[in-house]
Amino acid sequence: MSIAIIFGANGGIGQEFVKQALERHAVVYACSRPSEQSDAKTLPHIKAMDNGLQLVDIDVLNEDHLKNLADKISNQYGHVDLIVNATGILHDPNGLQPEKKIEDFNLDNFNKVFQINTASTALIAKYFISLLKKSESMPAVFASLSARVGSIGDNQLGGWYSYRASKAALNQIVKTLSIEVARRNKNTAVIALHPGTTDTKLSKPFQQNVKPEKLFSAYYSVSKMFQIIDNLFLEDNGKFFAWDGSTIEW
Amino acid sequence: MSIAIIFGANGGIGQEFVKQALERHAVVYACSRPSEQSDAKTLPHIKAMDNGLQLVDIDVLNEDHLKNLADKISNQYGHVDLIVNATGILHDPNGLQPEKKIEDFNLDNFNKVFQINTASTALIAKYFISLLKKSESMPAVFASLSARVGSIGDNQLGGWYSYRASKAALNQIVKTLSIEVARRNKNTAVIALHPGTTDTKLSKPFQQNVKPEKLFSAYYSVSKMFQIIDNLFLEDNGKFFAWDGSTIEW
Ligand SMILES: NC(=O)c1ccc[n+]([C@@H]2O[C@H](COP(=O)([O-])OP(=O)(O)OC[C@H]3O[C@@H](n4cnc5c(N)ncnc54)[C@H](OP(=O)(O)O)[C@@H]3O)[C@@H](O)[C@H]2O)c1
Ligand SMILES: NC(=O)c1ccc[n+]([C@@H]2O[C@H](COP(=O)([O-])OP(=O)(O)OC[C@H]3O[C@@H](n4cnc5c(N)ncnc54)[C@H](OP(=O)(O)O)[C@@H]3O)[C@@H](O)[C@H]2O)c1
Repeated sequence: MSIAIIFGANGGIGQEFVKQALERHAVVYACSRPSEQSDAKTLPHIKAMDNGLQLVDIDVLNEDHLKNLADKISNQYGHVDLIVNATGILHDPNGLQPEKKIEDFNLDNFNKVFQINTASTALIAKYFISLLKKSESMPAVFASLSARVGSIGDNQLGGWYSYRASKAALNQIVKTLSIEVARRNKNTAVIALHPGTTDTKLSKPFQQNVKPEKLFSAYYSVSKMFQIIDNLFLEDNGKFFAWDGSTIEW
Repeated sequence: MSIAIIFGANGGIGQEFVKQALERHAVVYACSRPSEQSDAKTLPHIKAMDNGLQLVDIDVLNEDHLKNLADKISNQYGHVDLIVNATGILHDPNGLQPEKKIEDFNLDNFNKVFQINTASTALIAKYFISLLKKSESMPAVFASLSARVGSIGDNQLGGWYSYRASKAALNQIVKTLSIEVARRNKNTAVIALHPGTTDTKLSKPFQQNVKPEKLFSAYYSVSKMFQIIDNLFLEDNGKFFAWDGSTIEW
């Protein structure tokens, strides 16, 4: 039975990943940040829907939550075919904004951004790596949403220090993990994905200068990213792909 | 008058940077982490020696300390010619160790490593960027100690998740800052440096497999890095150099 887990399932891109994963996988765990009302002590909450969808309230930075979910999936299915980490932060209602100049740099904001944009993928990997392994010819896939602005070599414009650096660090986590899954014979491709500029709450404040044909719907960008995922070979392990299938320099 | 500031001045590489900077600059601020005994409220402490050496006790992650030092240097000299950030952490006596496998990943250790290996350069830049500007033909230099293992493209071995990712993130901060100093016409080269494996407390636990001729004294590696710094052109702004002057891929 084919199992997928999507983190950031309530995000613009994550939501669409859940929809399109349901067309491909028998069971899809849609993992979202719990609402402030939920009782933290009893998390993660899992609510099964009738189409294979499992709605999960979980804090992706909480190791107990991740272990609990991994144990449940391990007991029930013994493996995972696809993991997508679509969490990410660029700005928030509490004053977090990408830096325009170095004087805007702030240590608390740096930390906030690195937790969710970088460490989340390492923590997910820590608890789910042992479940990643496909027995058929296709590799299992662990995809993390990165961003072209995380590319150091491609950085032309500057600014956005913390976001850019958090995605460069994420890319290094992805690359390092790809080496570890290969060494452990997991038949898994670990990849970073750039979705293209996509119409979500993350990109909303920065859409003015984007040409209409360059601003993708989540449906379009996730369809393109699934085209990549559906056609991955083991040789693609450790690559950084843009939505159109091209690779991006580090 | 030529002014240099070295952060991490009590480290193996930092100490040697201070020595060799004194041969080149009239005034050298040697900035070290304060001892536990010092009164945090009165920091930074500056103690002037007679050879141009200024011993500074300062917490490089404390914005008040950085601002205070920058204001003092600004009032007294109005500019800085060279900044070297030689702080860095790979392991510590409190149980921090580089990860051998993803299961060793730990969020507290990740945070500790990113503060000192990544954020410190951004914080120093935040308070000292306005002082960086050389009027003569040579550019001012802001060099941060990175590491070859921070290169994503060159990552062959895996492991060391947090350290590797923190140096990739540092490289992105360096690159982003290089774009900003160019835009602001600072006549400054912002660079990342790989010292080679150097005999210091940082590399000590990992020296077994290093061939003797590949394990450098701090004197040798800093001499090589000063060769690079002494010969920088503005076109080198934003580059990642190894000790031998070759550039390292991102
Ligand atoms: N949209 C673009 O143009 C674009 C371009 C390049 C890369 N990306 C990347 O694509 C990914 C998805 O972004 P998106 O466009 O779908 O943005 P989004 O709609 O804002 O979704 C972001 C997701 O991350 C979650 N998240 C944020 N902070 C969190 C935290 N502290 N703890 C737990 N979850 C948290 C959000 O949960 P809540 O809803 O509960 O906050 C949401 O599920 C991100 O990694 C982003 O960097 C997007
Ligand atoms: N040695 C090598 O083979 C090698 C190779 C590649 C890259 N590097 C890089 O070179 C740089 C210098 O390293 P090193 O070999 O000279 O190591 P080191 O002797 O351990 O020096 C590290 C310096 O960083 C300071 N530091 C560490 N944690 C700190 C914190 N939390 N707050 C403030 N300061 C802190 C240390 O201060 P305390 O002494 O007070 O702890 C010391 O001044 C580092 O960035 C390292 O990553 C070294």
